[in-house]
Amino acid sequence: MEVYAKRFTIRCGALQHPTNKLRNERSSMKVLQELRDRIANRVNINLREMEVDVRPMLDALVPLTQFSKFYAFYGLTPYHPLHFHFSNSTLAGSYFLGKCVVEFSMIYKSDVRGDELKVKDDAFVCDGLKIPLHADEEIHIKDSFLIKTLVHNFSHDPESPEEFLIQNSASLPYANIHGAPVEGSFLGPFCTIDLTTVHDTVVGEFAYLQTGEMAHHYVAPGQIWISGPHFDFKYRYDPEVLSRYIRHEPGKYPQGEFINFIEARERDFEEVFNAVRVSRELEVPSGASVSQYAVVKGACTLGENVLVAQRAYLEDAQLGKGANAQENCYIIASRLAGYNVTAHGAKIIQADMGEKVFVGFNSFLRGKLEAGLKVGGGSVIMPHTIIDLQDPVEVPEATLVWGFVANAEDLAQNSIPLSELEQVKGDFARGKMVFTGSGSEFVQAFGHRIDHILEANGAYWKGEESRGHAQSEQDISFNIVQPYPVGDLKGMYPTIDIRP
Amino acid sequence: MEVYAKRFTIRCGALQHPTNKLRNERSSMKVLQELRDRIANRVNINLREMEVDVRPMLDALVPLTQFSKFYAFYGLTPYHPLHFHFSNSTLAGSYFLGKCVVEFSMIYKSDVRGDELKVKDDAFVCDGLKIPLHADEEIHIKDSFLIKTLVHNFSHDPESPEEFLIQNSASLPYANIHGAPVEGSFLGPFCTIDLTTVHDTVVGEFAYLQTGEMAHHYVAPGQIWISGPHFDFKYRYDPEVLSRYIRHEPGKYPQGEFINFIEARERDFEEVFNAVRVSRELEVPSGASVSQYAVVKGACTLGENVLVAQRAYLEDAQLGKGANAQENCYIIASRLAGYNVTAHGAKIIQADMGEKVFVGFNSFLRGKLEAGLKVGGGSVIMPHTIIDLQDPVEVPEATLVWGFVANAEDLAQNSIPLSELEQVKGDFARGKMVFTGSGSEFVQAFGHRIDHILEANGAYWKGEESRGHAQSEQDISFNIVQPYPVGDLKGMYPTIDIRP
Repeated sequence: MEVYAKRFTIRCGALQHPTNKLRNERSSMKVLQELRDRIANRVNINLREMEVDVRPMLDALVPLTQFSKFYAFYGLTPYHPLHFHFSNSTLAGSYFLGKCVVEFSMIYKSDVRGDELKVKDDAFVCDGLKIPLHADEEIHIKDSFLIKTLVHNFSHDPESPEEFLIQNSASLPYANIHGAPVEGSFLGPFCTIDLTTVHDTVVGEFAYLQTGEMAHHYVAPGQIWISGPHFDFKYRYDPEVLSRYIRHEPGKYPQGEFINFIEARERDFEEVFNAVRVSRELEVPSGASVSQYAVVKGACTLGENVLVAQRAYLEDAQLGKGANAQENCYIIASRLAGYNVTAHGAKIIQADMGEKVFVGFNSFLRGKLEAGLKVGGGSVIMPHTIIDLQDPVEVPEATLVWGFVANAEDLAQNSIPLSELEQVKGDFARGKMVFTGSGSEFVQAFGHRIDHILEANGAYWKGEESRGHAQSEQDISFNIVQPYPVGDLKGMYPTIDIRP
Repeated sequence: MEVYAKRFTIRCGALQHPTNKLRNERSSMKVLQELRDRIANRVNINLREMEVDVRPMLDALVPLTQFSKFYAFYGLTPYHPLHFHFSNSTLAGSYFLGKCVVEFSMIYKSDVRGDELKVKDDAFVCDGLKIPLHADEEIHIKDSFLIKTLVHNFSHDPESPEEFLIQNSASLPYANIHGAPVEGSFLGPFCTIDLTTVHDTVVGEFAYLQTGEMAHHYVAPGQIWISGPHFDFKYRYDPEVLSRYIRHEPGKYPQGEFINFIEARERDFEEVFNAVRVSRELEVPSGASVSQYAVVKGACTLGENVLVAQRAYLEDAQLGKGANAQENCYIIASRLAGYNVTAHGAKIIQADMGEKVFVGFNSFLRGKLEAGLKVGGGSVIMPHTIIDLQDPVEVPEATLVWGFVANAEDLAQNSIPLSELEQVKGDFARGKMVFTGSGSEFVQAFGHRIDHILEANGAYWKGEESRGHAQSEQDISFNIVQPYPVGDLKGMYPTIDIRP
């Protein structure tokens, strides 16, 4: 991670505020500049042992003028505990839900969703211990910037059940923070921390972590690491392959296929974000919902209980009953048979997906007309898998797939039937993947998680009381907030407090 | 005002809450219904000596379901003291600016603008006394409903300079509350209270008041009354003529030409209100501004320093330098030479208006292709004037016009050269108009007021520091708030607090 190496040494106790010289100027966006530097300093201090300097990265990521161009919104429903407090911060295109406090932070085109915030008197059960909550859970974002970052909390940390905290941290484009408190950390582009509390940690681009807790760590780019009490799964991308898809040099915006793919479709989102209420010609069956902030192009069909989240992108997509298309996912020229999970940031192009196929975070599945992708029912495409085809490939039913797959030979090196994995006890390796522990517990854990996601998203809803997201999100209204338009405070937001 | 007569007697101390029976139902919009009844009771109690029952009127005005259909917005600029507090209330299409507190109120498609709120340490000068403000002035709306009502405060009341209060009051469509605290009062459709504090007062439809203060009064429909220390101006519309333009029966929505005219153009507004940011092909010269919530149709041209406020409607309109088109005004197929004031709710159709012509609140000026209207420079069309032509009419320069004018004979009975009025001392009558006092003070007072309006709106701006509304309103961002979408609270808004 030399790309993040510091250009100068931070000496504690002697930090010079670089914008002091601006103080006496009546410069536009002064407060925003100061805020950016303030956050960069806090992140750098937390990561001082890693000699990371995030400042040039932040400067290159988003021109400050962008912050005065976009609006943000807070979602209001009768189903989520309501409190939004926002101060000394800026936002763009964000989407908050439930109890959220944001202070001294910059959040740019993010989705921060409190769909699954726990409420007072709920009990958090962990290792047989019952921990009742003395207050509603709250998402708290402080001294951080989150650029195009999703924070979807189904928070897992039993140590602090009332507060989901993100503090002194920076996350780059399309990093996912998922159920994962973050303190003093830097998250590279397209990385995911999933149910993993991280402290003073640097996570490289496209790394995926699901390890419970992590402190003072440096996670290499393209590292996939899933670790539970009874298993450990590791895979690392070849740096050369990875750099074709995503690479990041300081002082530059991240580059590669992933970025090109997204940028080519950005304009489609501008249109939907400019309307207060969108009406579209699309049949939305009973129990299904399509966010007004999703793009739906070409001939799309939706089954019952389908959930199309905001910033999902559908083009010529067929989604069968109970399928869900999560934030920042793209489903193009593909058929999903039903009960499919397409997780945050996953992309599926020119593919035929069987029933209950799970496609994990930020996976990139791209078939071609002459090299189609077919995935058998019940298969699990691991988070951060890249299947980018030269030849047609068919993934058999109930198969686990990981890593980089361009053809059938790659698939053989990067997959295993779930039934075979269930037999594994102890050490096991295939291709560049190394596994140790109980294969059956690993398969079970994934199975439970997929069922939780489908249930929470309302895939199984039968018109009774317990609604999932697909049902509740028909009933959401958005409160749109905007920054100061000119002057010192240009791009900053006023203090906003929304309560019941 | 028998149309407002009570259908049953209110017995103090024994008020039955009519929605008690709903309490145990899980009915949608329950809270909104209770709020409406709560307000109606408060207004009725204040007006008990007049035997007014506002409840059936409110029920007929707006179906409750409308309240969940529209959004509202708060305008943010660096030029206005910022604080918006909103609780236990509902809104639709509103536009707040500056310090505003709203509690237990229903506000429907209103414009409430604090452009000219005084700030701490400003001195209010009245009768030679200097009253310094101990805090920023604040608009405070409590236990009231304001339906399609503008509250534009350039508040005049020296008794309470820190608080502009509207309490226990109901105002009907297109009533204007202008610089006018209101307590326990009922304002009929299209009436205007202008720099007039009213207590426990009923104002009939299309009445216009500018009398400083008024308590326990009943003001007849179509009554025009301007009263200062040194003059008194009165005119009352023939009830038969008035009823063609506006009439109101309890249990029904107001009817007449005014309503038809507005309803025919409502759809044009829906479009502009559905966009978060509007871009239009219109040349906006230096110092001018056009609200994104204005309708601009056909071939329109704007001069420098022109102000087109939100909910203004321009169609084939030419607005010369420094002209302003205020909220709810309509300017259609007309030319305004420059420095024209078209006040809130005024309508100008097929007319050629000279320089510095003032058209007062809710005036209705309608020429026809074959019966054009020409108004000479420097003329004053009094608030609530109706010029609806059968034949062509030309108003000479520097003329005061009032009342109902259909042809040249009417004009002779309803106008006076300003130079002639300036000579009047004591009693004077023309047609149905009765004047007493100093004509020159009356003319001067109007002149000062028009100059204040032009200056405040930025008509004279030369690119220096002291901006008017036309300059400042280029720099406004809107925060859009929406109600609960479903459930008991459907149509109600959460508590919102916006601070610097």
